[in-house]
Amino acid sequence: MIGDGMGITQITAGMYSNSNRLNLEQFPVIGLHKSYSSDNLVTDSAAGATAFSAGVKTYNGAIGVGADTLPTVTILELAEAAGLPTGLVSSSSLVHATPASFVAHNRHRDNKEEIAEDFVKSEVDLLIGGGYRYFDRRSKDERKISAELARKNYLIDVFQEKNIQQIKPDVSKNYLYFTADGEPLPYAQGRDYLVPASALAPTFLDARDTKNKGFFLMIEGAQIDWGGHANDSEYIISEMLEFDRAIGAVLAFAQKDGETLVIVTADHETGGYAIQTGSRLNAIQGAFTSDYHTADMIPVFAYGPGAEAFGGIYENTAIFTRMRDLLRLK
Amino acid sequence: MIGDGMGITQITAGMYSNSNRLNLEQFPVIGLHKSYSSDNLVTDSAAGATAFSAGVKTYNGAIGVGADTLPTVTILELAEAAGLPTGLVSSSSLVHATPASFVAHNRHRDNKEEIAEDFVKSEVDLLIGGGYRYFDRRSKDERKISAELARKNYLIDVFQEKNIQQIKPDVSKNYLYFTADGEPLPYAQGRDYLVPASALAPTFLDARDTKNKGFFLMIEGAQIDWGGHANDSEYIISEMLEFDRAIGAVLAFAQKDGETLVIVTADHETGGYAIQTGSRLNAIQGAFTSDYHTADMIPVFAYGPGAEAFGGIYENTAIFTRMRDLLRLK
Repeated sequence: MIGDGMGITQITAGMYSNSNRLNLEQFPVIGLHKSYSSDNLVTDSAAGATAFSAGVKTYNGAIGVGADTLPTVTILELAEAAGLPTGLVSSSSLVHATPASFVAHNRHRDNKEEIAEDFVKSEVDLLIGGGYRYFDRRSKDERKISAELARKNYLIDVFQEKNIQQIKPDVSKNYLYFTADGEPLPYAQGRDYLVPASALAPTFLDARDTKNKGFFLMIEGAQIDWGGHANDSEYIISEMLEFDRAIGAVLAFAQKDGETLVIVTADHETGGYAIQTGSRLNAIQGAFTSDYHTADMIPVFAYGPGAEAFGGIYENTAIFTRMRDLLRLK
Repeated sequence: MIGDGMGITQITAGMYSNSNRLNLEQFPVIGLHKSYSSDNLVTDSAAGATAFSAGVKTYNGAIGVGADTLPTVTILELAEAAGLPTGLVSSSSLVHATPASFVAHNRHRDNKEEIAEDFVKSEVDLLIGGGYRYFDRRSKDERKISAELARKNYLIDVFQEKNIQQIKPDVSKNYLYFTADGEPLPYAQGRDYLVPASALAPTFLDARDTKNKGFFLMIEGAQIDWGGHANDSEYIISEMLEFDRAIGAVLAFAQKDGETLVIVTADHETGGYAIQTGSRLNAIQGAFTSDYHTADMIPVFAYGPGAEAFGGIYENTAIFTRMRDLLRLK
């Protein structure tokens, strides 16, 4: 699970805005990763996600490609190849940097219609996020990518027709739910699918895991970052707390299941966010040094079988390596 | 070991100013503590150190006393009572908030001459730090506290007569080395005793541990905080890297000894420090939101027997409880 832009201050502000409680407190193992990219001490979300998805340090803007712009195999692709069900859930669009870096390969994150095309080349079992227009109302061509996906055994729902409570994925098929035409709204403006989607996703993938091999799922709380870019403490906190409830939903599955490793981290910190003197419990006064990312080391929280591998300080790319080794993927 | 004001950014800035290497990378276990005090979400160093030393949340300014201003028993006092050798080493004065909170009990950190008097009531085996004038050139009375300590079996050296290379502690006696009349200089201005003192201290205490009960030692890198208050990135980084070398000296002892638990943390973050875009390896561009402390959760690093007890998220007071339990003190 990736909280985009979720540095230590974002986590702390969420906790102290929630009467000093977070689901993250249930994680016994904590590590710190070094988030820098191949061309910058301050990473962006594309290079940050590609480090997690493919285990390579690459340049800012790179989606599933190395510093040489060549495609890199991702953990999601390795899992697919090994017959594990896979899923991507985000409160951004599906073609946004973080989810895109697990399934697509592109020189630059801005090529969102090209990134959408890559979803046809893969076969992710579960996709929940925004960005419908990059699939079906395209500028560069007339392709209807959702129709192409439907022919690849996808059941598809769209936000105009069904809300998250109304969807009924069929475990005999892949499932795609478009939650917005472009980028989804902030939580405070009414978007509310991340928590129920985080409850649904592991159950759905577990049901599709008929050979009992396990599954791979990436869930992103995307807009903690956007609150940081906006230097908006309230925005950060509401997104952080929604993401923490999503973590709670996944933990509930993992506690019952007993065989699921849950890893929570961020790609980078956003905003140079600080909790100033004068703050009180449930009344945070935030301040910022920047409207961009910073270079802070980022906490990694691990729960479940194999969690102990995620203690200590390491490069962000080690998260890929350790997940791959624990899943015995090659 | 306490790096005063050492939040995640201070650690990261030190690492990236040292070609991406820190001794902290050798710690397998990481936790996060909640630093708030009894009267403020943003702690000061006195309340922060009293949480570590005595396991109580108290008000900002409190030295070894609870929120009710009554004295609280410290881990150093418990260790002394159980016959364990003890030590305090700091790059501040000995009467400054952090070391003071382990040995003194006072309503307020500013009462430095009263705090000096409390060193006579205790019998810390090893004391290295500044603040000579609060002991022997006092405003409130004519006491010569160093003479009183000499009568309590202390060998005493002072910075005017000996530098750190010239001191020769005698393991048959307690040892006190005054490193400055008031507060010691910054590292960048020539103070250089913290690293050699950190090499000397565990060896000295281990030699005094004739009953093989173990020992308790607190080492403080005090001036990371002062760099934060000054909003001076270079000051922070030079103090951080000196403290990391002190950590290296202690780790070298612990690795050889095999029976020593090393815990490294901070009381709070100072400055709302951030590493801005435009920074490069060994060329950090820092920015600040404040000249005071912030409320960030603070990393805890643990190495050695019992280290696993320090994973996860917990209150700063739990550091006292876990140390006490691991040392089997009552």
